[in-house]
Parts: sequence; C-alpha cells; structure tokens
Amino acid sequence: MSDHGVPAPTEPRPTRLAALRDALARADLDALLVTSLANIRYLTGFSGSNALLVITAKDCVLMTDFRYATQVEEEVGGHAMIRIERANLWTGLWAQLGALVSVERIGFESMGLVHQDFARLLEQGARWSWRPTTEIVETLRAVKDPGEVVLIERAVAMAETALRLTVPMLHPGLTETAVAGILERHLREAGSEAFPFPSIVASGPRSALPHARTSERVLETGDFVLLDFGAVTAGYCSDITRTFVLGRATDGQREVYDVVREANARASGAIRVGMTGMAADAVARDYIDSRGFGEAFGHSLGHGIGLEVHEAPRLSRVVETPLAAGTVVTIEPGIYRAGWGGVRIEDNVYLSDAGPRILTGYPRDLHELS
Amino acid sequence: MSDHGVPAPTEPRPTRLAALRDALARADLDALLVTSLANIRYLTGFSGSNALLVITAKDCVLMTDFRYATQVEEEVGGHAMIRIERANLWTGLWAQLGALVSVERIGFESMGLVHQDFARLLEQGARWSWRPTTEIVETLRAVKDPGEVVLIERAVAMAETALRLTVPMLHPGLTETAVAGILERHLREAGSEAFPFPSIVASGPRSALPHARTSERVLETGDFVLLDFGAVTAGYCSDITRTFVLGRATDGQREVYDVVREANARASGAIRVGMTGMAADAVARDYIDSRGFGEAFGHSLGHGIGLEVHEAPRLSRVVETPLAAGTVVTIEPGIYRAGWGGVRIEDNVYLSDAGPRILTGYPRDLHELS
Repeated sequence: MSDHGVPAPTEPRPTRLAALRDALARADLDALLVTSLANIRYLTGFSGSNALLVITAKDCVLMTDFRYATQVEEEVGGHAMIRIERANLWTGLWAQLGALVSVERIGFESMGLVHQDFARLLEQGARWSWRPTTEIVETLRAVKDPGEVVLIERAVAMAETALRLTVPMLHPGLTETAVAGILERHLREAGSEAFPFPSIVASGPRSALPHARTSERVLETGDFVLLDFGAVTAGYCSDITRTFVLGRATDGQREVYDVVREANARASGAIRVGMTGMAADAVARDYIDSRGFGEAFGHSLGHGIGLEVHEAPRLSRVVETPLAAGTVVTIEPGIYRAGWGGVRIEDNVYLSDAGPRILTGYPRDLHELS
Repeated sequence: MSDHGVPAPTEPRPTRLAALRDALARADLDALLVTSLANIRYLTGFSGSNALLVITAKDCVLMTDFRYATQVEEEVGGHAMIRIERANLWTGLWAQLGALVSVERIGFESMGLVHQDFARLLEQGARWSWRPTTEIVETLRAVKDPGEVVLIERAVAMAETALRLTVPMLHPGLTETAVAGILERHLREAGSEAFPFPSIVASGPRSALPHARTSERVLETGDFVLLDFGAVTAGYCSDITRTFVLGRATDGQREVYDVVREANARASGAIRVGMTGMAADAVARDYIDSRGFGEAFGHSLGHGIGLEVHEAPRLSRVVETPLAAGTVVTIEPGIYRAGWGGVRIEDNVYLSDAGPRILTGYPRDLHELS
C-alpha cells in the first residue's frame, strides 16, 4: 500500500458501490436506504443538504429537491439515477421503490434516521420489510483510499498555514472571538471551503473546558491559549489543536504541558494496525495516570476524520475493534484543571500497514508567546 | 405587547418550564424526554453538545458528561438537577427515571431521536410507556419573549455591521472563499460567537444555486454576488441575504433584481399575525408569478429563526397554521436562472399584534459595486 499520498488514478465511486453491495449481500439485504448525508456524499459525490439514496444490487437512485437540480448533475453525473422531487422526498421514495424489482428486505441506517422518518417506513412503506443497520457505509468510509488521504493532507496543510499566520498576531487584549476571526480568515485565505466544526479559542481558565465555546473573554499575560479548529477541502476535514502560553510559563503550566506533549508523542508513535481503540487510548492514558493527572483526562484519545470530523473508528476505553489499515484518526490527549486551565495537543495520524504517519507537522514544543 | 425590544426583567426559564408542563398535562403525559439540544438550551440554558433532559410535573433532570461539568454549573445553576454521567447518558437515564415517582407515560421527541436511541426506549426502557411527540417545545420556542427579540436584533446588527465593512472590499479577482473570509472576520470582530450556518458567497452563474457552497470561483465584472450569512449571540441567530452586481447591471439583471426586491417588500409589508404560512408565501409568489418568473422561485418564502437558524414557523405553500404573535421569521424570495445567475433578498421580521417589524435595516436597492 502506498504511503505517499498519490491520488487514486481511477474513479472511486464504482469501487465503493461494489464494496457496499458485497456488504448488503452478506447482510442478506436486497437494498439499503441511505439517509446520512455524509454517506450519500461518499457513495455518489452529492454534497447537498436534502437527499435520499437507494442502493440495490443493480441500481443507485438519488432523490433530492429543486434547489439542487443543477448541483446534483454536476456532482453526480452518470453515477446515479437522479430524481428531482417536486414534493416531499419520501413521497418520491415510495414511487421509486415500487419501480424496483426483487426488492423486499431493505436496510435503513439506525443512527441516521429520526423516529419520525422511521415511522414513515412502517406506515407508508409497510409493503417492504425494513431492517435496522449500523455503520455499514461508515465502516467502508473508515478505510481511506489514497485520494482521500491526499485531501485530508491538504486540509491539514490549510489548517497549519492558518495557524502559522495567526500565532504571531496573538497578544494580550484580544478577545477569544477576535482571535477566532483572525484564524478563520487565514483558513479561508488558505482555501478552506468551510469550517468542520465551531472553532474553539479558549484562554486562561476557559482552556479547562474541553469543549469550550469561543467567548468574549480578553486574553491576558500568563494565559494558556488553546486553539482547536480545522479546515475542509472537497468535503474532507482536518482537526488540530495546539495550546500556547501567553508570556512566560509557570512551572505548573510547564509540567502539565510536558505531560500532555509526551502522552501525545507516545500514542502517535505506538498506534498500529490491529491494535484496539482501547489499547491506543491506554498508551496515552496510562502515561498521564502515571504522572498523577489521570482524573484530569476525561475524554477519549481520538476519533476518525474524513467527510465528517467525528467518524469511525473511535479511540476510547470501550472500543474493542482492531484498527484497520487506511484509517485516519486524531490523537488528542488533554489535561484539564477546573478554574486553572488546560492543555490539549491534537494531531491527525494516517495508519497504514507500514505504521503510523503523522500528517500534522506543526511544532509541539511549548511555545511561550512574547 | 411591547414592540421595542426591552429585555425581559424576569428569569425566563421558570416561565418556559411552566408552559411546557401545561402542554404535557394537556397531552396526558407524565414526563417529556428532551433530546433536541436546542430545546434543552431553551429550557435550561445549557449549550453543550451532549445531554438528555427529563421534565416531569415537579422535576427537571439534566444529564451530561465530564467535559461539561464546569460549564453546565455556570449555565444552568439551580434551574435543573444536574447529573454528570461517567458512562453513557442512557445508562444514567434509566437510573434517573427509576427514581422519579408517578412517571409512567413519557413523551419523546419524534423528530429529535434517531432510530437507534428509540430502540433503547423500547428495550432498556421497556418498563415505561413511550409516546412520540412532535414540536411541543418547538411550538413554545416559536413565540419569542422580549429578551429573545433583543438577542436576535443584536445578531442582526452584527451581521449588518460585517456586511457594511465587507461590501467596499469586494472586487473582481477575489475568490468566493476569500470573500467569505473577509465577511467572517468582520462577523467575529462584531462579536459573533459562531456562524449559524456555512456562509454562502455565490457569484456569477453560481448565484443561481439556491444552496450554493462557497467555492474557489473568481469574481468577475458583471457578476451577481450573493451573500447569505448570519451571526450568533447568546445562541440566537440572524440570517440575511443581499445580492450585488459587480460593475454595471444589465437590463436583464435589473429586471430580475427589481422583481425580487418588490416581492420582498410586498411580503414584509403584508405579513400579519393570524395569516397562514401559505398565505404569506403567496404574497411573494403570486407577484413573482405575475411577472413571469414563477418557475424560478423554487423554494419557500421563509422560516422562523431563534436558537436554530431554521425553526418554526415555516412560510411555505403547505403550511396552514396561522402565524402567532411573537414569531421572528425570514422573508427571502429569490429568482434563479440556471447558467445565468440568481437574486435573493432576505430580511428578518418580528411579528407582533401591532404588525410586522423588519429587523434588518441594510439597504435593498440595487447596488452596483464600482
């Protein structure tokens, strides 16, 4: 397997559909109703916000609405039978399904369908037999092809370029929101087509909130400043975190920083194909525990990234599935002390049979901003 | 009813809980399991990304995880019984429900619960009787109190400030992504805590895509440039659209622009409490139809805004519910011609018994950018 990020020379969609059809046959399903928009994008290329997709052994039918009539043709072309529904997509679905022969047992995405739409299947769709499925397409998505890895690398490069331009502009007196504005403008200038999640700028005691919202707090000398953000290109996300000290670090800040930095390095170095998510998580967690900060690392080590910023696989204490070759995950240990502050260092790592390759190159040493 | 946006002097959460409890009593429910995060925020103030809330006639129990331990105390304080769950929130739910007396019939949010979690209710939660509900909290949220209107007005002001600073910087040669970066930095400088949806910058033929994604297309003289974006403050959103011409407008551009501008003005002027969503939509649609562009206005007239950028009520061809006093909606007619371009003009309008009040003040006349 190439480790060097050469784009796939062939069109990936037929390969993905073939892999999905194999999975459906193994699950004894005649078809899959795909409702997750990220899964629809993966299988067809369509990036709109309203769609239903039906995949059978032979057919691939994509339904969307008027707003996307032009876009869906451009993005999907001949890779699916496209239906622009004037009314509700669900009304269109019954008509489309009725036209498909030998389709009885249909899987639906249990994590990607709200109860109200599930009730439609049992009512208007009562003539078919509906079976809940879990992560069928997500499992395919977890293994990236070389073209996908290239896109994630580009999203990482955009994020790092933006960070490099932003860090020299950080100074006491700026609000967290203003810092986010500087960072996001640099992300846009680097070509990021969107923000994969709300950028986190958390300073001082607010850096102890693992999922802080960016606020109007003013940066002060002595603060930790934690930036957790990403870029998106062609739908693929990056997700990185760096934590800085504004001015000179105290001994306490330096100690916590060094523990997180070492936990990050150990996990990124040790992660391997075939290891469980739990074992990967334990590499960082056991080290942080051994340094006396175990209680302060309350979230899991990381998660897959791709078309979604949180996707399979998970690196957490409860995951017993072995990691597959081709996954791209975040490695993001952290230590959080309420009222005092916190540190997180997050990288994006590609996992091949040859070992881990860290996609993020931005320095991890403690950086005291003068 | 005040029309002048004075903040509510009293704490709104007890009032909201009381209104919800009345609705539960009318629906013959002992409790409601709230899974929609926007509904949880409305009822408790908690803005985290992982929570379950149970409301009974007497109790209000909020479950979240470690990451939010500090934040939930700050945001919710004494307004709910807070439970930080070490394991899965659902495991915590069964324990919390078991401790509540006289709770048998429990509503759940049919539009806010995925099938996988619905299946948990039937399995691990089998000792209770579960009833699907639709838009119970959403219906309360549609009617804004004066404090909420003030926050939406602030979000509108942030968006307009950003637009005023951005427009003079538009020129041929910029990419749409770069324009988004300029606009979003100005939104942040104006204090916007987040972006309510991915900003749309659509130029030239791309302005004909009603849900365009911002792209790397370079702005050219003669383009329509459509900006659709918003700001957020204390969770409340604005959502506005303006369309400009880069250089001198052609007669064709001017005609389409004038039709949309007039449709916007007619709808904003005519909308009233008690009117149906369908009737409001028809004011703009009939005018556009009469000018020969009916086929080119393929989406609905507008939607409620508040804690979510799309919420109740809807202004569309199929909505027969009368509009309540206190709603805040978008009015956003558009005309789209594939391959040529499109125009949309979107305002935010507060509806009281005294009539409509247009919250957006940014000019709507055709602006040719030199």
